[in-house]
Amino acid sequence: MIDRSPQFGCRNPARLAALRIAAALALPLLLASPACAQQTLPDAANGFVNTLMPLPVTLVSKPGSLRLDHSFTYALRGDSGERLSQGAVRLLDRLETRTGISLVKSPAPQGQEAALTIDVLAASDEATPKLGEDESYTLDIDEHHVSLRAKTGIGALRGMETLLQLAQPAGSGFVFPAVHIEDAPRFPWRGLMLDPGRHFLPLPVIYRTLDGMAAVKLNVLHWHLTEDQGFRIESRVFPKLHEQGSDGLYYTQQQVRDVVAYAAARGIRVVPEFDMPGHSTTWFIGYPGLASAPGPYSVSREFGVLDAAMDPTDEATYDFLDKFLGEMAQLFPDAYMHIGGDESNGKQWRANPQIQAFMAAHGMKTTPELQTYFNTRVQKILAGHHKQMVGWDEILSPALPSEAVIQVWHGAEFLVNGAKQGHLGLYSHPYYLDHTYSAAQMFLADPLPAGADLTPDQAKMILGGEACMWGEQVIPSTIDSRIWPRAAAVAERFWSPAADRDADDMYRRLAIESTRLEAEGLTLLSGPEARQRQLAGTEQDQALALFASTLQPVDFHVRSREQHPTQLTVFDRLVDAVRPDPPLQHEFTVLVDGALRGNSADMRRLELLFHSWVDAAPALDRLAANSPLLQEAPAHRSTWPKLGTMGLEALSYLRSDSAPPAGWQESQTALLKEAVKPHELVEFVVLAPLEKLVAAASAPQVH
Amino acid sequence: MIDRSPQFGCRNPARLAALRIAAALALPLLLASPACAQQTLPDAANGFVNTLMPLPVTLVSKPGSLRLDHSFTYALRGDSGERLSQGAVRLLDRLETRTGISLVKSPAPQGQEAALTIDVLAASDEATPKLGEDESYTLDIDEHHVSLRAKTGIGALRGMETLLQLAQPAGSGFVFPAVHIEDAPRFPWRGLMLDPGRHFLPLPVIYRTLDGMAAVKLNVLHWHLTEDQGFRIESRVFPKLHEQGSDGLYYTQQQVRDVVAYAAARGIRVVPEFDMPGHSTTWFIGYPGLASAPGPYSVSREFGVLDAAMDPTDEATYDFLDKFLGEMAQLFPDAYMHIGGDESNGKQWRANPQIQAFMAAHGMKTTPELQTYFNTRVQKILAGHHKQMVGWDEILSPALPSEAVIQVWHGAEFLVNGAKQGHLGLYSHPYYLDHTYSAAQMFLADPLPAGADLTPDQAKMILGGEACMWGEQVIPSTIDSRIWPRAAAVAERFWSPAADRDADDMYRRLAIESTRLEAEGLTLLSGPEARQRQLAGTEQDQALALFASTLQPVDFHVRSREQHPTQLTVFDRLVDAVRPDPPLQHEFTVLVDGALRGNSADMRRLELLFHSWVDAAPALDRLAANSPLLQEAPAHRSTWPKLGTMGLEALSYLRSDSAPPAGWQESQTALLKEAVKPHELVEFVVLAPLEKLVAAASAPQVH
Repeated sequence: MIDRSPQFGCRNPARLAALRIAAALALPLLLASPACAQQTLPDAANGFVNTLMPLPVTLVSKPGSLRLDHSFTYALRGDSGERLSQGAVRLLDRLETRTGISLVKSPAPQGQEAALTIDVLAASDEATPKLGEDESYTLDIDEHHVSLRAKTGIGALRGMETLLQLAQPAGSGFVFPAVHIEDAPRFPWRGLMLDPGRHFLPLPVIYRTLDGMAAVKLNVLHWHLTEDQGFRIESRVFPKLHEQGSDGLYYTQQQVRDVVAYAAARGIRVVPEFDMPGHSTTWFIGYPGLASAPGPYSVSREFGVLDAAMDPTDEATYDFLDKFLGEMAQLFPDAYMHIGGDESNGKQWRANPQIQAFMAAHGMKTTPELQTYFNTRVQKILAGHHKQMVGWDEILSPALPSEAVIQVWHGAEFLVNGAKQGHLGLYSHPYYLDHTYSAAQMFLADPLPAGADLTPDQAKMILGGEACMWGEQVIPSTIDSRIWPRAAAVAERFWSPAADRDADDMYRRLAIESTRLEAEGLTLLSGPEARQRQLAGTEQDQALALFASTLQPVDFHVRSREQHPTQLTVFDRLVDAVRPDPPLQHEFTVLVDGALRGNSADMRRLELLFHSWVDAAPALDRLAANSPLLQEAPAHRSTWPKLGTMGLEALSYLRSDSAPPAGWQESQTALLKEAVKPHELVEFVVLAPLEKLVAAASAPQVH
Repeated sequence: MIDRSPQFGCRNPARLAALRIAAALALPLLLASPACAQQTLPDAANGFVNTLMPLPVTLVSKPGSLRLDHSFTYALRGDSGERLSQGAVRLLDRLETRTGISLVKSPAPQGQEAALTIDVLAASDEATPKLGEDESYTLDIDEHHVSLRAKTGIGALRGMETLLQLAQPAGSGFVFPAVHIEDAPRFPWRGLMLDPGRHFLPLPVIYRTLDGMAAVKLNVLHWHLTEDQGFRIESRVFPKLHEQGSDGLYYTQQQVRDVVAYAAARGIRVVPEFDMPGHSTTWFIGYPGLASAPGPYSVSREFGVLDAAMDPTDEATYDFLDKFLGEMAQLFPDAYMHIGGDESNGKQWRANPQIQAFMAAHGMKTTPELQTYFNTRVQKILAGHHKQMVGWDEILSPALPSEAVIQVWHGAEFLVNGAKQGHLGLYSHPYYLDHTYSAAQMFLADPLPAGADLTPDQAKMILGGEACMWGEQVIPSTIDSRIWPRAAAVAERFWSPAADRDADDMYRRLAIESTRLEAEGLTLLSGPEARQRQLAGTEQDQALALFASTLQPVDFHVRSREQHPTQLTVFDRLVDAVRPDPPLQHEFTVLVDGALRGNSADMRRLELLFHSWVDAAPALDRLAANSPLLQEAPAHRSTWPKLGTMGLEALSYLRSDSAPPAGWQESQTALLKEAVKPHELVEFVVLAPLEKLVAAASAPQVH
């Protein structure tokens, strides 16, 4: 089989085999066309490759580029505060890590010309970023100079992230392509919610999440600190809250101050949530008097809607909340504070005669009316501490004071209704990261879609939105892969113009953003890999990696129903080793569409992919035979190579233009129907396009 | 090409191609025979698969096994201290994470029978593990019960690590195979040295390193805290030490106390090193009066042997050291303290007339004599603080008080000489992790080899040894892959009987230990992968991974010479993305030996491997064309496929028993000679076996 010539011989079978092995090895590259784009050189003649995420408002590409080398220096003008100077040092540190080029971290001496100048018009309050602060900037790069200009320090920080994303490999070095960029956010409130209540999130998770947020210009960390499963913040006024409600897992006040400062240094506000009157079991362990039923209470291991609720008819409740929220108001400088307000089922209220009597005396017929009374009282307490109240959309009612901000998780109509009733609104409904919404679905969901039934003044009430990462089914080692990279697609929705709706281009840039986020220290890629390694018990298993690339976790509700996980469940199964909306989901759709248009390169790529599934399946089965955790997914393992065979056969029929035998389409459809059933906590991400392929192969007259 | 049958068609070329693709996909599995062994079931009939590291003294395998399930409980008897009960909770936590089986973390109620009983004869001082404490244990497992017995709590901790390593997959669950184990360490001092002086190591690195040490039964963290490049510990008595000597990167006293407590909880002693009289530049920035030349001094960015040295003739030096070491003695409860003593070049002493006068007055002819005077004074100071002095082997001299412990880095003769002069000794010379010694080389190097020129009493002076991770060329993201898994092989040398010298079996177990260490949170595997990802700029690149698997970093001295890295160098090149002694190094040797013995399976595996190099090279070149950092290794990239072709040709000649054409061997040898040249900071790990293969192919009469 080996030729005697110095070059590796090329008889026909060997060439074919070599081609196919080479292709198999290069599969990730072949498929990952978006990532390949990163490798494309910025070409002065042909314009440049846009790898920015989020997209800026205006970008004009120009000929030429600025080469990055050791002599790259910077100067700050206008705002000489700590935030900006530290931000500049971080920028250079990160540039250095990416490029391997050592850079001088201190500003260029006075009078010496610098390659990068950062001009800021006015100094601002660094410790407390504020809602609505000007975040705009302009960035001009030519062959000799980078000029970043902003009205505020925060705007300059946003521009630095853009500049960092612009650094591109070019030949043996790195360049900044020449551009003119004018940029500003579409919405002022661009948040991410973290829920350490259900599964505690150690500080490193919080910090690296803030790094990721800053990279994609998100500007609010919504910190859901109290839950039925954990009270996660130290209270010195009521120490039994964290002492008895947290299993010892809580943030100290000093840690909270550190997090708030870290966020502020990145232009990120921190809005804490203290969920009430429901989701409050852990308050009552140490302070049962707050509750509407006598207790005793303990940390809940089960998730879901529990009955425990504060007693809204007892003045002592409001005294307690006044003192507690007052203490918290000192810790969190932001002007907004979130009181939750969701999923209060009213059961304890209906079962308590005193509460029933209170309702009767005040003419309240339903528990939501009582909750509105409670909300109104809490709103006044917060106002007394100079905080504006935010709550989930259950709090929306005609009697609610219009000062309350509504965070919408039930559907767009709540946002519209809230705005019409004079409430500021935040949209979260389509951005729940515990669901398997694809990045494209999240990206295309708009807080303020064209044609929304709102006057221009009402539309201004929509502040933006938040992606929400609820904690039931995530732990520190998996949370990054659930948040990212999809939250980057959401971030673009919140920042970039409404007209930015090209999901294909978004996916191209998202693949690049994924590797950038991983470089920032997030574990969106390495987390699932590490879990796969544990499942396989070996350093690396290609068959498992290939299998995993075709799967995603089932949706939150499906996992809840199928597995019924509690706080004590161990999260180390196949579902915890795969990612939502993995790159193959979009790539496969694009390849199938290409193949159906007759693109022969796409057909070849699909063929290699299908072959790889068929060929790797025996190795996967061997692995699973002695990997107890992999044995849990027998149906998906046995279906996988069948999907490969299905695809190969479909391609064969498409190519030959000959009809498949009778019954072929029916048997494939039956197989697909079986494959789509949600079980084993994972689901294939290739089924819909495969069905398209099968249908096209069964109708040869189409081409 | 696609058969109509439901099964994927199998015409000949397709079958051939499919076979080869399957093989390519399964390559890591095919090659990683050691890791495969982990998948082998413990079979009561055939004995069991030993995956322990280090090997115990006595292991008797028995029929049967204990199945791990939710009902697994434990009970502690004898020692009810915090250390043991927390150790048991950690054991169950880790078991849970590996197996996905939720376990009850609190001990079984009194009177109820537990699956695991841990008996400890005597309670001990938990806060301060001591040199020579009894670490022995016995472990008995039958189908119903695990019994762990130890004289001390530390012995029980060691036994828990063994128990954890015994947990094995079996069908759809996990079991502990039935065994009787009696175990105790060969040497009482089994250390690992970390050097945050040259590159600061943040606390997470220290903590995860301690986790890895505990897993393989290492019991001393030697913490090299002061260097020319950084003074890394807070001193309240002399605050200018850390304030001016650390760039702000130092451990606070509270952090040190936390680390010491964390280590003690795992039965690990912490021995700090304060290097003197040389390697002390950073002491003199704030306190220039200590030095032998006036200064001024600044943090050194350059590595190597510097001239700065304390003035051993000034009584103020000893006053200072007494106060400083007294402060440190309070922080570190261990009975030993390390004073360095290495690489003091004497230049400042020879240049200082007062010091020269002092030497003359005291009859000293050489600077080493002056250093012995200094060491003797410091030894008395340490004794005053109840600390026994440890120093590098430069301190060895006839006049040195015999209380001083000698750590040997220059060669075994220093260990022997030290023991003969009555000094306790530690062996480190073969265990320098910044060198590219293979795991086998380290494993086979014995602190007390058979036939050592020592009496039995002198032999007892050899306390053990330490693996040393000097800090010049490592940063937090690469250090794990430099320490591990090789330090596990060293740990086995220090713990297991001298007769344990089967390097092949060690490598089999080391591959398993690598994945276990990664599961503990170390980044020995994921660190290099993350760096490869950054080099490629894509999520994963198979060609780069394959290329990297054939490479290792060049030795410390070669990198120093070729790159001259300083503290300001960015460590993000190909050399930082590959691992020393990667698995392929040993596997390839084994495969070539097998092939040369005529093993056809090994020949086939080699053929696939060589094909994969040839086939992946074009993809690697395409990647490198736009990856500036990969462009730095053009020679290795162009040589790589040639090595594959060389291997394929050699196999072809071996198989056909036909002689290669004239000049073939010469041209291959020339290519190998070129390939071995150390440049581009990386080196191939396959060259010596390849040369063997070429030689065998050139001498067909052999078979």
